[in-house]
Amino acid sequence: MARTGRRPAGSGAREKILAAARDAFAARGFGGVTMRQIASIAAVDPALVHHYFGTKDQLFLTVLRSAVDPDRILAQLLAGGVDTLGERIVAEFLRLWEGDAGANASALLRTAATADHIARLVREVIFPDVVDAVMSKCDLDPGEAPLRAAFVASQLAGLAFTRYLVELEPLAAAAADIVIRTVGATVQRYLTGELPSPNP
Amino acid sequence: MARTGRRPAGSGAREKILAAARDAFAARGFGGVTMRQIASIAAVDPALVHHYFGTKDQLFLTVLRSAVDPDRILAQLLAGGVDTLGERIVAEFLRLWEGDAGANASALLRTAATADHIARLVREVIFPDVVDAVMSKCDLDPGEAPLRAAFVASQLAGLAFTRYLVELEPLAAAAADIVIRTVGATVQRYLTGELPSPNP
Repeated sequence: MARTGRRPAGSGAREKILAAARDAFAARGFGGVTMRQIASIAAVDPALVHHYFGTKDQLFLTVLRSAVDPDRILAQLLAGGVDTLGERIVAEFLRLWEGDAGANASALLRTAATADHIARLVREVIFPDVVDAVMSKCDLDPGEAPLRAAFVASQLAGLAFTRYLVELEPLAAAAADIVIRTVGATVQRYLTGELPSPNP
Repeated sequence: MARTGRRPAGSGAREKILAAARDAFAARGFGGVTMRQIASIAAVDPALVHHYFGTKDQLFLTVLRSAVDPDRILAQLLAGGVDTLGERIVAEFLRLWEGDAGANASALLRTAATADHIARLVREVIFPDVVDAVMSKCDLDPGEAPLRAAFVASQLAGLAFTRYLVELEPLAAAAADIVIRTVGATVQRYLTGELPSPNP
C-alpha cells in the first residue's frame, strides 16, 4: 500500500529530515538554510522537524554527529598506545576531512568563524564531547588536560583551515603520510610532552 | 582658508579613505562593506577610492598591510638567532591579534573562510609576501621552505581561530607566555626541525 503526501511521524521521516539537513548544510552552510527549507526538501511538515530535532542548532549538531561516527573514531584512536596517539588523531582527522563528512566539517568551520552561537556550540558541546572522551582514556593529569586539548584543537583547526579551506600549497597537495607524521608529532607533544609552567 | 565638501586628490583623501576602510572592514568584514560606503564614510567621491586603491581586494590588502607594518615585524623576527625564531614568530603573532590590528586580522580570517577570492589573496599574495621574507633570511633549504612555511601557517591560523575567534578555553585565557613557549616550540620544529621524508 503506497503512501503519498506528507509523512506522519515514524515512517522514516526522521531519516529523511536528517538526510535533507545534511545535504542542505553541506551545500549552503548553517546560515544559508532554514528549518522550513529542510522540511520542504524532506517533504515533511515543518513541525515534525522541530518535533524530532528541536532547534536548528540541535539539528546541525545531530547532522555533524551522524556524519562523524564518534564511536568508530574513538575506537580507532584508542587502538594503540598513548605514545602514538598524536599520529592516529591526525590520521583520523584527515580521513574525516577527505571523506564524505568533509563537506559537513567544512560547513561547520566556515560557520564557526562567522556565527557566534555556533562558535559557542563548538566551544561548549562539540569540543568537550570529543576531546574529553579521548582525554579520559589517556590517563592525563586532569588539571592539565583541558589546556592540552585546546592546543591540540588549535593545530587541528589550523590544519583544516589551511589544507582544506584556503588550500594553501604545498600543504594542500602534500601526501597524507607526511602531514600525519609532521603534525602528529605536534599533537603528541601537546598531549603528553612537557608544558611550560607560568613564569613567576 | 578652510576647505569644505568633497576633497580633491592630494588633500589627505588617501589617508581618510584608508582610515574609513580600516574601520568599516573591521566592523563588518570584507563582504559587509561596499566601495561606495567607504567613500561615503571618508566623504570623498567613489571614483577617488578606485583611483587610489584600485579594486576592493586591493584596498583590503592595503588596509591589512598598513595595520600590520611588515617591516617592523620582520625586524623583530630577525632580531635574534634562528633557533629562537619560533617563539618570536608566535610572540609577534599574539601582539598582532591582541593589538589594534586584531580586528582587521579577525575580519580577514572570517572572510578567508567564506569568500573564495579572499582565500586566493591569502594563498597567493599575503602568505608568500610574509613568509618568503622570513624564509629568505633563515638560510633554509629552498626546496623545503614552502612546506615548512605552510605548516607554520597551519599552526598560527589555528591558534587565531581557537584563541581569538572561537575563544576556546582554557586557551583563550592562557597567559601569552605559556602560549608563546608551547606553540613556539611547534613553529620552531616546523622551521628548522627534521621533516619526515615520503614513505617509499
